Amino acid sequence: MAENKIPYKIYLTEDEMPRQWYNLRADMSNKPAPLLNPGTLQPMTATELETVFCAELVQQELDNDTPYFDIPQEIRDFYKMYRPAPLVRAYCLEEKLQTPAKIYYKFEGNNTSGSHKLNSAIAQAYYAKAQGLKGVTTETGAGQWGTALSMACGYLGLDCRVFMVKCSYEQKPFRREVMRVHGASVTPSPSEITQVGRKILAEFPGTTGSLGCAISEAVEVAVNTPGYRYVLGSVLNQVLLHQSIIGLEAKLALDKYGVKPDIIIGCAGGGSNLGGLIAPFMGEKLRGEADYRFIAVEPASCPTLTRGEYRYDFCDTGMVCPLAKMYTLGSSFMPSADHAGGLRFHGMSSIVSQLYADGYMEAQSVRQTEVFQAAEEFARVEGILPAPESSHAILAAINEAKKCQETGEEKTILFGLTGTGYFDLVAYEKFHNGEMNNYIPSDAEIAAALARLPKVD
Amino acid sequence: MAENKIPYKIYLTEDEMPRQWYNLRADMSNKPAPLLNPGTLQPMTATELETVFCAELVQQELDNDTPYFDIPQEIRDFYKMYRPAPLVRAYCLEEKLQTPAKIYYKFEGNNTSGSHKLNSAIAQAYYAKAQGLKGVTTETGAGQWGTALSMACGYLGLDCRVFMVKCSYEQKPFRREVMRVHGASVTPSPSEITQVGRKILAEFPGTTGSLGCAISEAVEVAVNTPGYRYVLGSVLNQVLLHQSIIGLEAKLALDKYGVKPDIIIGCAGGGSNLGGLIAPFMGEKLRGEADYRFIAVEPASCPTLTRGEYRYDFCDTGMVCPLAKMYTLGSSFMPSADHAGGLRFHGMSSIVSQLYADGYMEAQSVRQTEVFQAAEEFARVEGILPAPESSHAILAAINEAKKCQETGEEKTILFGLTGTGYFDLVAYEKFHNGEMNNYIPSDAEIAAALARLPKVD
Repeated sequence: MAENKIPYKIYLTEDEMPRQWYNLRADMSNKPAPLLNPGTLQPMTATELETVFCAELVQQELDNDTPYFDIPQEIRDFYKMYRPAPLVRAYCLEEKLQTPAKIYYKFEGNNTSGSHKLNSAIAQAYYAKAQGLKGVTTETGAGQWGTALSMACGYLGLDCRVFMVKCSYEQKPFRREVMRVHGASVTPSPSEITQVGRKILAEFPGTTGSLGCAISEAVEVAVNTPGYRYVLGSVLNQVLLHQSIIGLEAKLALDKYGVKPDIIIGCAGGGSNLGGLIAPFMGEKLRGEADYRFIAVEPASCPTLTRGEYRYDFCDTGMVCPLAKMYTLGSSFMPSADHAGGLRFHGMSSIVSQLYADGYMEAQSVRQTEVFQAAEEFARVEGILPAPESSHAILAAINEAKKCQETGEEKTILFGLTGTGYFDLVAYEKFHNGEMNNYIPSDAEIAAALARLPKVD
Repeated sequence: MAENKIPYKIYLTEDEMPRQWYNLRADMSNKPAPLLNPGTLQPMTATELETVFCAELVQQELDNDTPYFDIPQEIRDFYKMYRPAPLVRAYCLEEKLQTPAKIYYKFEGNNTSGSHKLNSAIAQAYYAKAQGLKGVTTETGAGQWGTALSMACGYLGLDCRVFMVKCSYEQKPFRREVMRVHGASVTPSPSEITQVGRKILAEFPGTTGSLGCAISEAVEVAVNTPGYRYVLGSVLNQVLLHQSIIGLEAKLALDKYGVKPDIIIGCAGGGSNLGGLIAPFMGEKLRGEADYRFIAVEPASCPTLTRGEYRYDFCDTGMVCPLAKMYTLGSSFMPSADHAGGLRFHGMSSIVSQLYADGYMEAQSVRQTEVFQAAEEFARVEGILPAPESSHAILAAINEAKKCQETGEEKTILFGLTGTGYFDLVAYEKFHNGEMNNYIPSDAEIAAALARLPKVD
């Protein structure tokens, strides 16, 4: 292990950093289906979307043809604060596993928000400011997205109002406190300050909230407050566009050393990391220039791709947002409260869904105790405490590396390490104490959630 | 701010990483005073020290003459996992302050332990393993050092027994959990498993422990368990030797761009970061090759250099460890419980103390509310949530940069950003809620603690 030609960490120089995001849709022959207006069930127009989202972001959301979008200089400067993110050669993990496989991971956790979410947060905050807005609203569950958005808004001097699911607000006070460091206002949801919040509180006085309710509150405030818009950290096409920076940097770093991955692995919740990581590689595959094996890894407790249906569904449980065509477990599906490992969204990015439906990608579901086992194994040799979400990809990568050990194949594996687990230690504690279970939803449970959906297809 | 010749972050390549640690003592004409045996008050011999510490580390501890020590290949490989640490040009902070000063910081927080402590932890664990030991014992207060040592031992397969001050064990369960991720055993101190622990529990049944007690327990276990030694994360000469990697990398990075700092600032608790950061620069100053202004920054609540006395004292409150000649507030001095900002040690590295006594360095004490104000200001523009300890240096750097704004001088400032504040959010919360105070010990309080010391000088 002494002297390797490829360093432990490959950093691009600032001059080498990408100046454009890549829009994977431009190379897809089957484009992702459009968002539908929940009232008319007709495709959402730009005008309709602009009541909720910033104008520039609506253009990015609807553009299925332009392959590259310039990254504005101000965003590139912000990226330089925490990027280029390192591409790490996992020499220590390889040695531990005694595998002939070559393992690389793109690490996105080296910033205070602790995840890749910041890549899109700064873009969305930038366009909001450029449009002359006063602020943005959003929801957050565990708090990764809310933290990232708070950082971006704090930097740009934009007001940031976060609705945080009440049980997370109370159980994760540290995440809330980081948002306050960056000047955001954080409101536990459901709250008394919105109509929908008051309605839910009247109906369920003791509720600890849900992501669906927090979305509805954030949208209500954005729509009713002059100078405000709503922003979202995953699922949307615009988010995958911004997150393409992950894959673009990874590919540039690999290209510098003439390395071509055989297998590319990403964890999949709403698809923001997975879609960003695979983007330029998938583009090559779609254009017939190269072939790669892509694996989306999701929790067995929320198995959207592996057990969901590909159809139109609401993005929120409140059913007030537009409908997206995607793999879904049904917008009323709720993962078990015992599920600690993130990636709890019932649906999936329309882009990722379409690629999966068209056979360009595989999907695996994994159990959370095995995920934490892999996380701990990884932490001990690679020196990074991974987020539970990221650890889904770690587990799949370890499994592939073990197969190489059996077959003797020297495959090159690339996976996305989306973030750090500093705010997930309650889950690690449960794991250490043997209190973590592996709840898996029944077919009947999923069927029931899907049966509650309106027929659109 | 668009195109700067000097990038936001300067990373050395792996080939450029230092292959030797620098021993500052070799260039000091007044050497630091030797450790004294608490029984005989005579200088501790190598044989005496080897009952507690690893043999190789004892050599490093006692060697005042050899200027460079080779870093073993295994340690260099481990360093590659999380180093080289970036030297960051704080463009965003400079812009925020509208200062002509050029601000750089060496960031040591990009690893799971979240601080520079890992630099010495891996070295001490390595020599313990090379000596054929089974394991090591240590104490930890807030948990930074314990976490770092757990990581190093977990990596090398060495048993790691940490005595964690009971109040921290209970109030900082996340730190404890990270240590468990790396396979360490963590015992709340005082415990029932040592003689000294049982004695203290019998005397003070409800006590929540102290660092001094935890040290005594860790030493007792190391001395009485075959195959174990005790290790320590600060104060000792060997620790400053290992931490010289911080300053060596910083200097190499600055030299690459022809930059020479005017002012070098480090926070000072036991002196591990400060001594490491300044080492190669101070060496130049001692040899008359260059001049720099050095500033040690300490909390007003524990003002060792600015209000302590330079004399022999115990390193532990239990008065069982060797005596060191150092600036001290008295080993029975306890900083106020309201003090949240780290750097609580009553004494100071003998090397740092001697340099300060000889006039090579300045010292400042700062109040903790101002420290947290600076921390927040920094986080918002630089995207890193700093540890309270590091934030003492941030505050001093900001103050120097503001002076430049007044005078128009384009000074170059380098400071050490020792770590991240992910596990210090209770303190940030206190700050946000206006519940943080600025307790400063009275002259009488310090005099009383000093009066309790034996006369040795």
